[in-house]
Amino acid sequence: MASKLARALRITKKPEHYATMTPSQAIVAFEPGPEHKGGANWEMTEIKVPSELGDGELLVEMVASGICHTDIALTDPNKGQTFPMVAGHEGSGYIKAVGPNVKKSLKPGDPVLLSFDSCGSCKECHEKRPAYCDTFIPMNLYGESEVFKGSDETQSIGAKFFGHSSFAKLSVVKESTVLPVKDLIKNEDELKLFAPLGCGVQTGAGAILNLVTPGQDDTVMVCGLGGVGLSAIMGARIAGCKRIVAVDKVQERIDLAKDVFGATHGLNTTDLTDLTAAMKDISGGRGPNVVIETTGFPLVLEASYYAVDTRGAFVQVGGPADPHYRFSLDVVQHLFRGIKLWGCVEGDSFPGDFIPELIKYYREGKLPVDKMVRYYQAADFKTALHDMHVGETIKPVLVWR
Amino acid sequence: MASKLARALRITKKPEHYATMTPSQAIVAFEPGPEHKGGANWEMTEIKVPSELGDGELLVEMVASGICHTDIALTDPNKGQTFPMVAGHEGSGYIKAVGPNVKKSLKPGDPVLLSFDSCGSCKECHEKRPAYCDTFIPMNLYGESEVFKGSDETQSIGAKFFGHSSFAKLSVVKESTVLPVKDLIKNEDELKLFAPLGCGVQTGAGAILNLVTPGQDDTVMVCGLGGVGLSAIMGARIAGCKRIVAVDKVQERIDLAKDVFGATHGLNTTDLTDLTAAMKDISGGRGPNVVIETTGFPLVLEASYYAVDTRGAFVQVGGPADPHYRFSLDVVQHLFRGIKLWGCVEGDSFPGDFIPELIKYYREGKLPVDKMVRYYQAADFKTALHDMHVGETIKPVLVWR
Repeated sequence: MASKLARALRITKKPEHYATMTPSQAIVAFEPGPEHKGGANWEMTEIKVPSELGDGELLVEMVASGICHTDIALTDPNKGQTFPMVAGHEGSGYIKAVGPNVKKSLKPGDPVLLSFDSCGSCKECHEKRPAYCDTFIPMNLYGESEVFKGSDETQSIGAKFFGHSSFAKLSVVKESTVLPVKDLIKNEDELKLFAPLGCGVQTGAGAILNLVTPGQDDTVMVCGLGGVGLSAIMGARIAGCKRIVAVDKVQERIDLAKDVFGATHGLNTTDLTDLTAAMKDISGGRGPNVVIETTGFPLVLEASYYAVDTRGAFVQVGGPADPHYRFSLDVVQHLFRGIKLWGCVEGDSFPGDFIPELIKYYREGKLPVDKMVRYYQAADFKTALHDMHVGETIKPVLVWR
Repeated sequence: MASKLARALRITKKPEHYATMTPSQAIVAFEPGPEHKGGANWEMTEIKVPSELGDGELLVEMVASGICHTDIALTDPNKGQTFPMVAGHEGSGYIKAVGPNVKKSLKPGDPVLLSFDSCGSCKECHEKRPAYCDTFIPMNLYGESEVFKGSDETQSIGAKFFGHSSFAKLSVVKESTVLPVKDLIKNEDELKLFAPLGCGVQTGAGAILNLVTPGQDDTVMVCGLGGVGLSAIMGARIAGCKRIVAVDKVQERIDLAKDVFGATHGLNTTDLTDLTAAMKDISGGRGPNVVIETTGFPLVLEASYYAVDTRGAFVQVGGPADPHYRFSLDVVQHLFRGIKLWGCVEGDSFPGDFIPELIKYYREGKLPVDKMVRYYQAADFKTALHDMHVGETIKPVLVWR
């Protein structure tokens, strides 16, 4: 995860222009100690937000913030994160203030969705593939230091995680992460509901609709039925794929994938001894043409790679928990099987184009994100985390008002 | 290379229908002993060829046979080959006799090019991707036993390597490997010249023109400038790629790639300490969008994988000498870089469509295969092998008449 690089690149400028501060609430991630047993250490905390904004910055009053595994993974110990900081990288809200040199047409009161950050000037940004921006990792995964202050204004708290740190009632947001949606949404309920579109939903649906673009003869297998995986299932249904196989270890999720999101077949991995054989079998015998692997678990990743049919595409979407994990690729087999092994970030999306497309699919009944979202008051974020951890909630969305 | 599977699947039927035998000459690969130091053991030998043909078989009088590294690799020890046998998998010649139930319109005297074998009935064959035929490996790499006889008719000699074993003056050829070219070629010189189209040329050019299909904004880097690599260079020129980087350790080949085949830049790997950095540098700094890796050498393979630009395609075309070689893939990096890692056999070609296309390119001056071919009398095959080994000849073609 290039954490050294990230630390080196993380912007540490002193925000001299922050003359006055506005009080707010945020879920602050503090440095985890041994008592957190390797997990994240988040607390709802009073913070202060700069009242004056820098170039290209916006102050957003959050309506809703989706929780994603990346928030947890990147506030774990040993991931190169600098604490304390505010995570959150799926969000929606209203503009409260517009900083100097903001180019998008935005004014206070406008509703916005928040996605990820990119520099806007590198080759990948110019080619409308900002998820592969040259500075994607430092800009998104490590944000900026000293954006917020502790309640007494002595403690610095990092923010602009993915350019916006949506786990705050008020947040300083970079224009580059903002999608104006005044003309796209009907009401505040939709603004809440669409909060996860900017990461989880576009990551899963985009891997299918932007990268692989399978067709009606294809068999797509999705490993892991969290928000990303179910969005890939919905993407495969939109693409009209003839067989859509949902793989998880939680039967309720498999049932949901089939009953609601478009999976035609389900595979529960619990107690399976030959995972590859079972995956091939449920996929019609030859294995799937397309695998969307969202779990990052080596066992599932390797089993599903070997399940792919000849000339099939294996798309790695989920990052392994161990950033040093290596997959031992049998080059001769890979060659003779004609496999396409692809990495995919944020569903290859250009959010300005793809999020409106996702909203259109929602309106047509093809992307029922409402069926995977569960709302929690922001103050109840620990319940949301617990429910997510035990598999009771697929996509927890924190509500700030 | 699944040699056990290959041995198990290799067809060992007794050709009862071979009533009479016709004498011929062939380069027979015998089991290598310690004195061959791990290399192949080939000898020009008098053989007998069955005068009666089986279903779908043709007797071909060879005009020319290209030598490819695969001929050498698969007659090395420990590759699961059964000796003695006749290799050769690029060829051209004239039909001498037509067996029963041959479906293609062919009669004695018709010129043909020879390519690879496929079953014609599996999913991949139906989808016109016969290089990924379910039985490609046993049918092509291991052929059939007991096709030819020794001169006294007691010794059985395997053949139908790639369905045709072109290292024989007369060979029993499967219809499935045959492309009739009566309407495509002008004279016997062309028949000689086009012998390598059926494997080496289509493998390299096809990886570009059938699989990757790059465009004018792309930088293609080709590692290894044998027949396959130079064909990939020609393919990239046909595709109009803006930068075409030729990588080898032999300067003469790099010069030839630039002067004749369309490379715009060359990189000599001799004495380089940081191969990846040099590859990125010569490819405009960010590295190539497309790598065609034909060498199979782990050092070159790994260096060039890491040289690929974000969202680029790395295509493995050459098989590693060690079939057990594993590439240690950094999954997190692969994901964040959005790399496409593809295996490619025979350039993803459907020879019946692609070889005529290659001939058209040759006529238009875009595929100067004549500039990479050197002819040798079949009896001088050891000179051809030597010249190939030391890098003096790119594509040796043995001439049988």
